[in-house]
Amino acid sequence: MTLAERVRYADFHPRIMSADAAAALIPHGTNVGMSGFTGAGYPKALPQAIAARARAEHAAGKPYKINVWTGASTAPEADGVMAEADALGQRLPFNTDPIARRKINEGQIDFIDMHLSHVAQHAWFGFLGPMQVAVVEVLGVTADGLLIPSTSVGNNKTWLEIADHVILEVNTQLPARMEGMHDIYYGTAIPPRRVPIAMTHADDRIGEPYLRVDPSKVVAVVETHRGDRDNVFAAPDANSHLIAASIIDFLAHEMKMGRLPKEMLPVQSGVGNVANAVLAGLMTGPFENLLGFTEVLQDGMLDLLRAGKMSKASATAISLSRAAFEDFEKNIDFYRERILLRPQEISNHPELVRRLGIIAMNSMIEADIYGNINSTHIMGSAMMNGIGGSGDFARNGYLSFFVTPSVAKNGAISCIVPMVSHVDHTEHDTQIIVTEQGLADLRGLSPRQRAQVIIDRCAHPDYRPLLQDYFDRARAQGAQHTPHLLGEALGWHQRCLATGTMRPAA
Amino acid sequence: MTLAERVRYADFHPRIMSADAAAALIPHGTNVGMSGFTGAGYPKALPQAIAARARAEHAAGKPYKINVWTGASTAPEADGVMAEADALGQRLPFNTDPIARRKINEGQIDFIDMHLSHVAQHAWFGFLGPMQVAVVEVLGVTADGLLIPSTSVGNNKTWLEIADHVILEVNTQLPARMEGMHDIYYGTAIPPRRVPIAMTHADDRIGEPYLRVDPSKVVAVVETHRGDRDNVFAAPDANSHLIAASIIDFLAHEMKMGRLPKEMLPVQSGVGNVANAVLAGLMTGPFENLLGFTEVLQDGMLDLLRAGKMSKASATAISLSRAAFEDFEKNIDFYRERILLRPQEISNHPELVRRLGIIAMNSMIEADIYGNINSTHIMGSAMMNGIGGSGDFARNGYLSFFVTPSVAKNGAISCIVPMVSHVDHTEHDTQIIVTEQGLADLRGLSPRQRAQVIIDRCAHPDYRPLLQDYFDRARAQGAQHTPHLLGEALGWHQRCLATGTMRPAA
Repeated sequence: MTLAERVRYADFHPRIMSADAAAALIPHGTNVGMSGFTGAGYPKALPQAIAARARAEHAAGKPYKINVWTGASTAPEADGVMAEADALGQRLPFNTDPIARRKINEGQIDFIDMHLSHVAQHAWFGFLGPMQVAVVEVLGVTADGLLIPSTSVGNNKTWLEIADHVILEVNTQLPARMEGMHDIYYGTAIPPRRVPIAMTHADDRIGEPYLRVDPSKVVAVVETHRGDRDNVFAAPDANSHLIAASIIDFLAHEMKMGRLPKEMLPVQSGVGNVANAVLAGLMTGPFENLLGFTEVLQDGMLDLLRAGKMSKASATAISLSRAAFEDFEKNIDFYRERILLRPQEISNHPELVRRLGIIAMNSMIEADIYGNINSTHIMGSAMMNGIGGSGDFARNGYLSFFVTPSVAKNGAISCIVPMVSHVDHTEHDTQIIVTEQGLADLRGLSPRQRAQVIIDRCAHPDYRPLLQDYFDRARAQGAQHTPHLLGEALGWHQRCLATGTMRPAA
Repeated sequence: MTLAERVRYADFHPRIMSADAAAALIPHGTNVGMSGFTGAGYPKALPQAIAARARAEHAAGKPYKINVWTGASTAPEADGVMAEADALGQRLPFNTDPIARRKINEGQIDFIDMHLSHVAQHAWFGFLGPMQVAVVEVLGVTADGLLIPSTSVGNNKTWLEIADHVILEVNTQLPARMEGMHDIYYGTAIPPRRVPIAMTHADDRIGEPYLRVDPSKVVAVVETHRGDRDNVFAAPDANSHLIAASIIDFLAHEMKMGRLPKEMLPVQSGVGNVANAVLAGLMTGPFENLLGFTEVLQDGMLDLLRAGKMSKASATAISLSRAAFEDFEKNIDFYRERILLRPQEISNHPELVRRLGIIAMNSMIEADIYGNINSTHIMGSAMMNGIGGSGDFARNGYLSFFVTPSVAKNGAISCIVPMVSHVDHTEHDTQIIVTEQGLADLRGLSPRQRAQVIIDRCAHPDYRPLLQDYFDRARAQGAQHTPHLLGEALGWHQRCLATGTMRPAA
């Protein structure tokens, strides 16, 4: 389908221009709201034109940086090229690009790590400053000037509303037949004018299939003709299967004990290989008619839909491998009946996560023996990706799992430590921790009880005696609510920074 | 009013008995749901009878401990006597009693520190185990067998529903004319049968004035004739006034800038002297027709209601000084029109806190330079009181303030530290930190930017150069997203544990 066929709103035709011409409309210092969530639906042409402009400006001795707010992560041709060109001043709320990550950790980019459910409202409240330009990928424009959203919705509704000017990237490669799959809720408001969100089931449609934009704000329409980044998933390894099996067993047991309703509850799953393995586990588990209520629809959830194990899935983005995307495109009529893509303030909304009773499953970097979770930082100082939506789901979900292999870097790092080097989820928000060693159910336990269960069930055998020793010595002195030895609490991380491993010298 | 006049449901009369007789119905190992929130509406007779029974059993060489779940804190004649008698095995979700605190920190009581909005639902889901007995203070029983709630509602609705047996303490001293002041919502459910809570304004009445109980579960009715604990508030000191003035100025500025609606938003205020000072500040501030949406109605909010500055206040407990309670009782018809007392799952509900756009103001023990907040632990291991509802409001509120004087213990302790020794609220949940030194607005700032603002605005001058030195040296090495020196990060706390002060040796 050509650009003209995609843009059926004739008033926009004179505004079609090259990405370079559109980038010229974005001056140094601009706050830019971009589309993009987990490598889906991000602009592909503008970021490269912005990077080119930055390099030219810098070569001419002029400053050029912009502040980029997105839904979540983008891809090498967005964050990567802009970071490489030193075009990013401030970046929020999430990033997975390795070049941007390096610049964040070098102190060159001011990265703000936010709960994904907070971003749209904080921007709307004015807490983040004015937004001059929105750059939003869409799949087309209807004859009425409504926008057909792309493979992610993210914060696009809000960006289109609050930005002074809008640049549309029309993607002529991604399937226009996604039209009708989106559910854009226009009932939000700024307090005190908010009302209940009328959703009582994860698959309730509460909005419209299109994004709205004030046509007078649209200053440029740019064509893109390339797909989203391919998301490469390794086949689940043995550890992932063990973690998944523990979770499935636990859920089945909870249902048997009457602590989980017989009809099951909607499932949220974080991003990555372990998450996909858990979803693969659900494929063979005893649960039917599952519902998904999650941020990102990955391969594993698409498999569940295709197999009929999951009846509907709600998300804010579709982030698939190449093979899965081909299946998605080929069977798009099937999936359109079963997938709802919504703004991330809805996909992650605390009101809905609590009401619907979501089962939350998120990965982490490390947990400590008391159940505090680090989802974001390597050795206390270096940002990995960001908290994403894990807090939205962990705090408000019916059940909340945090999962990780018990060790990383071939055993040099224990993912269960005396004290985490950064806290993203507190002990108050952690219910169940799972590693390939086993599952620790922390509900109704005091900190000392939690510590023993986590050490016994989740720690790797190589580190278990060291954790037990730490805990035993902490129990022999000082206050005993959360026994700690402050002089050693971060010692494992210090040792790793100094020697490359948490293992003590022989 | 006599007990017979208070208990108008005749079927209960044969079940009237002494507290000792009722305590005999509570065996060793029982999970007991008690009423009580911030020293209001707790049972006064049963806990003392339980303590007496525990002492007798222990003297006879028999074990006797019970697990006590409440709304929040109680008083010396409840937690205090039971802790003193070693009658408490497990205790949740909050405590301020000094004897119970000591036993918690000696490792004798298993204390579970929970978000107050989580308690009722986790108990109902079965996550905390079965509840055999509920002990609930009420002000009377109607002829239909409905219960007139006392000065707090807390988790009583849930305790009455899930307990196998119910013991009612009928308080014949507290004013029966509170009847009609309560708003008990019976629309909650276990997922997937939850529906939106139909509240769009903080003063919407959504429930009923009475608690329900299955009469067949009531095994004892016991009389109490004594008031709640007196809450002693010191007159706000100079630091409290400075903190309050900063907050009032900030709110007025935000309104002027259009970032806070002209009609203001409902106010939540934590417990204590600083909180009362902020409320006193609102008395002279430029805001009219305020609404309160908070956990605990303290003297300061009663003053605002009396003065007509606040039109309505919603809470789960009334916790007053003796003088304020006398005013409350004398003018109870006035206050009944203006106060709504609800279950704590409603007063603290994330859905409502976010929808209504609450302005949250909570005290803390310490903050670190990156905006992580410790609300619960002294030097990493000792429990102070608990997180209470601070997380419910901080995460979901429109604006969230954390306040503390910049130093404690006559300057021996800095309340701004390089790294907090325990995290209850993460950087993602902290918007504004206020000390008597000033106010740090952290919205839209990266960690490095936050650190400089917190050091400059909030730290005490005695500690400011030390914090700056830490930050400068951390910025000179290692990863720069959240610059830390892990070997020193908790060094201030270690020094304090060793020497009694965070000040370095001269």
